[in-house]
Amino acid sequence: MTDGYLIGLDFGTESARGVLISIASGRQERSLVCRYKHGVMTSRLASGTDLPPAYALQDADDYLSVAETILRELGSGRRIEAIGLDSTASSPLPALADGTPLSRIAPSDPHAYVKLWKHAAAQSYAEAINQRGGAYLANFGNRLSGEWLLAKAAQLRAEAPGIWERADRFIEAGDWIVWQLTGHEVRSLNMAAYKAQYLPATGYPEHVVPGLADRLSAPHQVGTAAGELTADWRRRTGIAGPAVVAVAAIDSHAVVPAVKAGRSRTLIGALGTSAAYLYLTNHPQPLPRGLEGAAEDAALPGFWGYEAGQPAFGDILAWFARTFPLAADEGSTFDLYNSAAAVIRPGSTQLLAVDWWSGNRVPFADASLSGILIGLNLATTGAAIYRALIEGLCFGARTVIDVLAAGNLPTEHLIATSGLAQRTPLVVQTLADVTGLTVEVPSIANATSVGAAIHGAVAAGVVNDFATGQKRFGAMSSESYMPNTEVRPIYDEIYGRYRAITAEDEIRNTMRSLKEIAVRTYAGERAGTLEQTAT
Amino acid sequence: MTDGYLIGLDFGTESARGVLISIASGRQERSLVCRYKHGVMTSRLASGTDLPPAYALQDADDYLSVAETILRELGSGRRIEAIGLDSTASSPLPALADGTPLSRIAPSDPHAYVKLWKHAAAQSYAEAINQRGGAYLANFGNRLSGEWLLAKAAQLRAEAPGIWERADRFIEAGDWIVWQLTGHEVRSLNMAAYKAQYLPATGYPEHVVPGLADRLSAPHQVGTAAGELTADWRRRTGIAGPAVVAVAAIDSHAVVPAVKAGRSRTLIGALGTSAAYLYLTNHPQPLPRGLEGAAEDAALPGFWGYEAGQPAFGDILAWFARTFPLAADEGSTFDLYNSAAAVIRPGSTQLLAVDWWSGNRVPFADASLSGILIGLNLATTGAAIYRALIEGLCFGARTVIDVLAAGNLPTEHLIATSGLAQRTPLVVQTLADVTGLTVEVPSIANATSVGAAIHGAVAAGVVNDFATGQKRFGAMSSESYMPNTEVRPIYDEIYGRYRAITAEDEIRNTMRSLKEIAVRTYAGERAGTLEQTAT
Repeated sequence: MTDGYLIGLDFGTESARGVLISIASGRQERSLVCRYKHGVMTSRLASGTDLPPAYALQDADDYLSVAETILRELGSGRRIEAIGLDSTASSPLPALADGTPLSRIAPSDPHAYVKLWKHAAAQSYAEAINQRGGAYLANFGNRLSGEWLLAKAAQLRAEAPGIWERADRFIEAGDWIVWQLTGHEVRSLNMAAYKAQYLPATGYPEHVVPGLADRLSAPHQVGTAAGELTADWRRRTGIAGPAVVAVAAIDSHAVVPAVKAGRSRTLIGALGTSAAYLYLTNHPQPLPRGLEGAAEDAALPGFWGYEAGQPAFGDILAWFARTFPLAADEGSTFDLYNSAAAVIRPGSTQLLAVDWWSGNRVPFADASLSGILIGLNLATTGAAIYRALIEGLCFGARTVIDVLAAGNLPTEHLIATSGLAQRTPLVVQTLADVTGLTVEVPSIANATSVGAAIHGAVAAGVVNDFATGQKRFGAMSSESYMPNTEVRPIYDEIYGRYRAITAEDEIRNTMRSLKEIAVRTYAGERAGTLEQTAT
Repeated sequence: MTDGYLIGLDFGTESARGVLISIASGRQERSLVCRYKHGVMTSRLASGTDLPPAYALQDADDYLSVAETILRELGSGRRIEAIGLDSTASSPLPALADGTPLSRIAPSDPHAYVKLWKHAAAQSYAEAINQRGGAYLANFGNRLSGEWLLAKAAQLRAEAPGIWERADRFIEAGDWIVWQLTGHEVRSLNMAAYKAQYLPATGYPEHVVPGLADRLSAPHQVGTAAGELTADWRRRTGIAGPAVVAVAAIDSHAVVPAVKAGRSRTLIGALGTSAAYLYLTNHPQPLPRGLEGAAEDAALPGFWGYEAGQPAFGDILAWFARTFPLAADEGSTFDLYNSAAAVIRPGSTQLLAVDWWSGNRVPFADASLSGILIGLNLATTGAAIYRALIEGLCFGARTVIDVLAAGNLPTEHLIATSGLAQRTPLVVQTLADVTGLTVEVPSIANATSVGAAIHGAVAAGVVNDFATGQKRFGAMSSESYMPNTEVRPIYDEIYGRYRAITAEDEIRNTMRSLKEIAVRTYAGERAGTLEQTAT
């Protein structure tokens, strides 16, 4: 035992969240959220430069600024044994050899900034890369996502050769923050394996983006030390003690030890605005179609980890509440819809929703797909639609589970994390009823930051391994939602219809066609506006 | 010329509407609406008897009561040359040989009342009749609707043999009102042909419902006289003059001369809560699949008339405004949705709606189908959905036109009647854009009642024929909506998707399955409630 502390830092999309954990008690003593000064830049840089469609950038200096605030507020005058951190990914930035982000040097060039995970403008580069194929994509369904590092590097190289030339490094935001805190560029295998297709045996894929290999470096396992907090950071934050900094982790993976999910055949669903799934197993199989990727020892040492997702989850419910409000504030609207939907008997709505508001990942991996409501009639209520949306989201989740199972990757434990899961029992109960699995919702605040702190504890030797770490610092309890066996057959039947409908080529073709028409119409409208402006 | 008047009476679903027309000027001088005392009885009779599901009954005495009020208010002290009337159909009732409705004799028996057109509880009898088949259904797609007279007679005979035994007559409401006003049972060929499958050459179909033929009588063409108003009615209403009463017409057909639609290759769409179509031609063809029926000289002498419909039209927009209101009153909500939807560029919503909220008639003739919204995404707005609903309704209308055209029944004139068409330019313009046809909206108030009055004028010899009648008393002007050629290709493309989607068996099977599950769940819920009540 020690009177020291752990700090966990979670660099999310809009803000960073830190927790301070007493090693002796295992308890969170403080937590703090800081928003990034420039947030997510989608239409304009702070310098005034307009951004093309589908851009989503961040300013790397925002990370340092919030890190300093959080570390000082939580750590000043305290003995910090370890700091662990996670970030979104893939969110890479170009930097000089000394770590200077290029956005400090070329602040008006969009390509000098962090390309955030949801920056979607590199998609065409991913498609070009996919056309060439390659063995390095074997664990990724032979398909590179436009969100990943290779595609973003290809875009940077093609569209901003000047920035590319000056960039000595191209590095994930989390790895870059570790570098800033420790003075050492020590990258994460977690990030490299899932977002840059690094394999221990063969390294990074070669020849995909010429010159990229020189801008990367060999990664290290999570739970290892990247170094100690630098003297400069100690001075600025008042932190004392060893302050060992762990290598970075991907946010949706960092949460695993905090929710005690380090077990074989476990599916962890982070049910946020979108749903990010990680399936852990000791019995690897080839990647089932539609899953995003798999890697060994990269998410959690000792396990294979498979990634999957639903591109929109809470987003869809928020869309409904925003589009059809029942009260002045969104919270009250949610309360009203949730309580009205909760008393509707499963199967009685006559509705089926397909949850593809932002496209589909499993099993079609197609961002051009869209949502469906079927079964509408004059007796349909808003609450019934809201309930159908929840059911549709759970059918999407069951699709992930069934695709895994069809690939001999059975789910024995299902864990739902996130605030949405904690706040919305109807969603979790429906998930249990639709999947027939008991769903555990760990009772823990700031789970991802706590997970990051456990990474720090393992890296600093405060605990011997993740198994001990999750026992000491992970959730002390969880709420279990048991499936209601009575409604199971009803949901089986409706889910069967969901799978049949989504398997129809004509429906998916119609979605693509409608989107294509809308894009064309939008282009026509812009052209018309330009013409009008010109005359 | 004369200083006399015409009266037109339109017996609708909730109320009757009368107009008083000056023969000299051709103008409507007064109009009046009276609601039925008992309205539509769907859950309980006035006598307290509970009704089974899907029942929709009316009290025949309500018709007499409103007829007396309207005739007195419009006609008292005036010289009335003619009275024409129309009613919903098929809305038959059992009566004694002297015209007494059985509801006066057995007021607690649901089967003694008028089975309103939308009484849906005779469907299983229609299906049993259809299984036996028969040549008499050749002009009706070999399919009897559960809404028609034969099915309703079959239900009455099977479920209330006592009432059936006492019923000397089984008669459409409109024909019964004519009988009451004149003292003569003179039925309408319009009603008999479309709702009781009467053919001039062969009469009513035999052996379909044993004993029915004895309870019917040979029908007469519209525009002929059934008799004159009885002395008793003259005394009660103060009406003077010949007061010739015309044989009754079906409401959706009565409107034809009022909107000057008596032309070959003309499609008249009464776009109300549902849409009722009548296609008139001098060039008959076999009935295209999905159309309801065809008859010669029955809707308008000299023409073949084909019936089609969309089971929900304005109903769907009203459902949306009611379910997702934007203001305290429905009118303001409609205004807000209409103005927001009007500025959305065709094709830009990314949405496609299938307008089957109350099932589909053309081409599938299946009441168990339901509505779809496809293309939903996080940018979808309420106004975009509202617009997509309007477009979906117009795709449904175009389907009727295309099915007619495929059967060599081309539409050269498209006329949209109803208050909805007059009030909602966005709907009519979209109809023009989607069909590529100019849509005429006749500028006339109380069109159906005026049509009924023209029937009276023809019957009384005030004019020689309907052609003269529509010229003298029909709409003096109409608003024309021209198709926008620019958006035509976009709607062609989306409509192509609409047809492809609706042709998918899997989708229609899913709709049926969802409905069946909902019915089963509802039955389970009722059983559960009963159990709880019992314990």
